[in-house]
Amino acid sequence: MKAEIIAVGSELLTPDRMDTNSLFLTEELNKLGIEVVRKTIVGDHRELLAEAFRDALNRVPLIIASGGLGPTEDDLTRETLAELLGRKLILNDAILRYIEGRFRQLGREMPSVNVRQAMVPEGAEVLENPRGSAPGLWLEDKGRLIALLPGPPRELKPMYEEQVLPRLERRRSGVRMFHRELRVAGMGESAVEQRIRPIYTRYSDVKTTILAAPGEIQIHLRIWTEDIAYAQKTLDEIVQGFELALTDRIFSKDGSSMEEVIARLLTMNKATISAAESCTGGLLAQRLTSIAGSSSYFLGSVVCYSNELKSAWVNVPAELIQSKGAVSSEVAVALAEGIRRSVGSTLGVGITGIAGPGGGSDEKPVGTVHVALAHAGGVKERGVRFPGDREAIRWHASQLALDMVRLHFLYNGGDSPPRGVKRA
Amino acid sequence: MKAEIIAVGSELLTPDRMDTNSLFLTEELNKLGIEVVRKTIVGDHRELLAEAFRDALNRVPLIIASGGLGPTEDDLTRETLAELLGRKLILNDAILRYIEGRFRQLGREMPSVNVRQAMVPEGAEVLENPRGSAPGLWLEDKGRLIALLPGPPRELKPMYEEQVLPRLERRRSGVRMFHRELRVAGMGESAVEQRIRPIYTRYSDVKTTILAAPGEIQIHLRIWTEDIAYAQKTLDEIVQGFELALTDRIFSKDGSSMEEVIARLLTMNKATISAAESCTGGLLAQRLTSIAGSSSYFLGSVVCYSNELKSAWVNVPAELIQSKGAVSSEVAVALAEGIRRSVGSTLGVGITGIAGPGGGSDEKPVGTVHVALAHAGGVKERGVRFPGDREAIRWHASQLALDMVRLHFLYNGGDSPPRGVKRA
Repeated sequence: MKAEIIAVGSELLTPDRMDTNSLFLTEELNKLGIEVVRKTIVGDHRELLAEAFRDALNRVPLIIASGGLGPTEDDLTRETLAELLGRKLILNDAILRYIEGRFRQLGREMPSVNVRQAMVPEGAEVLENPRGSAPGLWLEDKGRLIALLPGPPRELKPMYEEQVLPRLERRRSGVRMFHRELRVAGMGESAVEQRIRPIYTRYSDVKTTILAAPGEIQIHLRIWTEDIAYAQKTLDEIVQGFELALTDRIFSKDGSSMEEVIARLLTMNKATISAAESCTGGLLAQRLTSIAGSSSYFLGSVVCYSNELKSAWVNVPAELIQSKGAVSSEVAVALAEGIRRSVGSTLGVGITGIAGPGGGSDEKPVGTVHVALAHAGGVKERGVRFPGDREAIRWHASQLALDMVRLHFLYNGGDSPPRGVKRA
Repeated sequence: MKAEIIAVGSELLTPDRMDTNSLFLTEELNKLGIEVVRKTIVGDHRELLAEAFRDALNRVPLIIASGGLGPTEDDLTRETLAELLGRKLILNDAILRYIEGRFRQLGREMPSVNVRQAMVPEGAEVLENPRGSAPGLWLEDKGRLIALLPGPPRELKPMYEEQVLPRLERRRSGVRMFHRELRVAGMGESAVEQRIRPIYTRYSDVKTTILAAPGEIQIHLRIWTEDIAYAQKTLDEIVQGFELALTDRIFSKDGSSMEEVIARLLTMNKATISAAESCTGGLLAQRLTSIAGSSSYFLGSVVCYSNELKSAWVNVPAELIQSKGAVSSEVAVALAEGIRRSVGSTLGVGITGIAGPGGGSDEKPVGTVHVALAHAGGVKERGVRFPGDREAIRWHASQLALDMVRLHFLYNGGDSPPRGVKRA
């Protein structure tokens, strides 16, 4: 089944507010195998609202709308839809008594405007709202289903779960959505696309989406079917194909973030980690410690922006900085080895680079970054030039550091990864 | 003038992503007196995309669309619109050379799929994209204006500002929007609302929006008028009223972020700063160094998660940690004084706390945070209990630390702020 979501409210067309209900609704609908094919955000305006509903009714069998059910003149959803479907609005005594009771409980008299909230289109079912005064409505019209829900998320969510979901479940076909998410580091979007296109285009019933996120590419596979075994087998097959195409560039096959992947690897290997950061300014430490329980593997780190602190805190020889430059492979290695020794951790990471916008030169332009990983068996180092602005360069640098930790564990803490796939 | 925004991308119809570009675009269009009457989010699907454009073209004279300009098979915006308007797609050599050049710079060959990005509908103007490979397009058709922009915000925003805005400005009417943004720390949304409501309700032509963001409240004032002098005078008056109501809780009157405010204060006062973080895990350092040029005031910091490193790196006495606990006012002070001494900076910040979800107790529940600021004249310390999850608590703690730095400068590096306004 296909659905559309209509979010009603002029405030959702200002720069300050956005419709977030649709994320919750999409997640819930997807679980039932219902695909959201369009979202429309429209103001409290009778004609535009009518047009949005009319168009959606012509396209899909299910519409979930939120907002515009309040008591004020602005709130037009109920009236507009009733008119569109040619249904009379009838005063519902039970709702009126309920709303009056709510106001009595708050020690106030019900303002007369609230009577509008007790008007129900002929033939509609009322969805009770224990958390607010606006009741929701459920309508069926020529085989199409329409749910009108209140705008505030704390009223909408329970109303959906308790009253819309059971109604949808009764009608649901066996079709469900099955989803896989893979994440890839160290490759660009078009390079990923080029490698995996020959694979995913063979599966016409699977929807493949490739998304570029900072420092990574996310691949979503979605299939809608009744047949669980077929879905699993198909998705497994595609994922296997992607693994052959992308080899060790895939860091996550279950949608985990890089931070989560590294947390699991460190925990499984009973390893600890420390870092000496320069250009990333604490970003690597912040990402490592964003995971609950990180104190079991993360002991500490230093951010040594100044050259003096590179020497004072992690014993990078001042002569080395002098001769090679603070941004150099040698200093990255010295930072990694120095912090590992100082903290006594299994692994030590050193990062030095030029995040910009200032500080670049012809020889070492903005974006030049060196990352080193010190371990019991030695040290690995990589020098890269990242594109983008300060924020992007810092993020890429921290992502490369985390990816080097991942590859270290993948290749049993010593071997170099195969060089078949080109990096970053 | 009325406009519609169309956000293109199947990923925007999943529970994982939402269109945020439209907030930026709405703000910008409003400034020109252009009202956004509808937003449509539609997937990478030829027919649905065509329908969305066709309907919008029938309703409004301006359409801004984002997304779907990438190199992959999914990216259909260019082709769909060309077909809809009956225009041929023509290979643009200049764009092709530019895209090839970008790949060359990164040391890679252009994948053949990227050729699609150089296809331009007949009569369209190309909007250059120095930050990505997808160029934008500007089309005029029977008096209607259409801008196609790339989806990534960091590509879309400058392209709008540099290339779409000037084209729209040429056509605009006399009414403009004037905007002020104030930011407040250490108070909740309803407390702010209660204090400023008596002021802003006196100005019926000014739209006031109060938004809760992590660790701060943002107040937006907007007025639409042709009369610049009147707009400035009115907004000045309201801001002055807010200053009386909120006193030193306002940290920004020009929409600057807390990081930017602190950067300016440190630079103006020729002061340097260092930090010893525990629960924030590098977040404070990361925020301080997110500003370009931060190396002039930020020297270095340590993240000492383990108690041993608190002692080894910043000389927090092991007995103090033993007797008072790692999360205590005394340890926060010792961290601040220790790092200040070690680095030799003007200011030293110490942060210790329980970010959760584990590690809380009855006496020190999750959310307990102590922040200390050491300076030449002594040390200030504050103990707070923050609500929310791990991420929120860490953010609040870093925000409090930055706000203490701000207040330190505001009150000439010694005096306590007046206590009229309740904190956090």
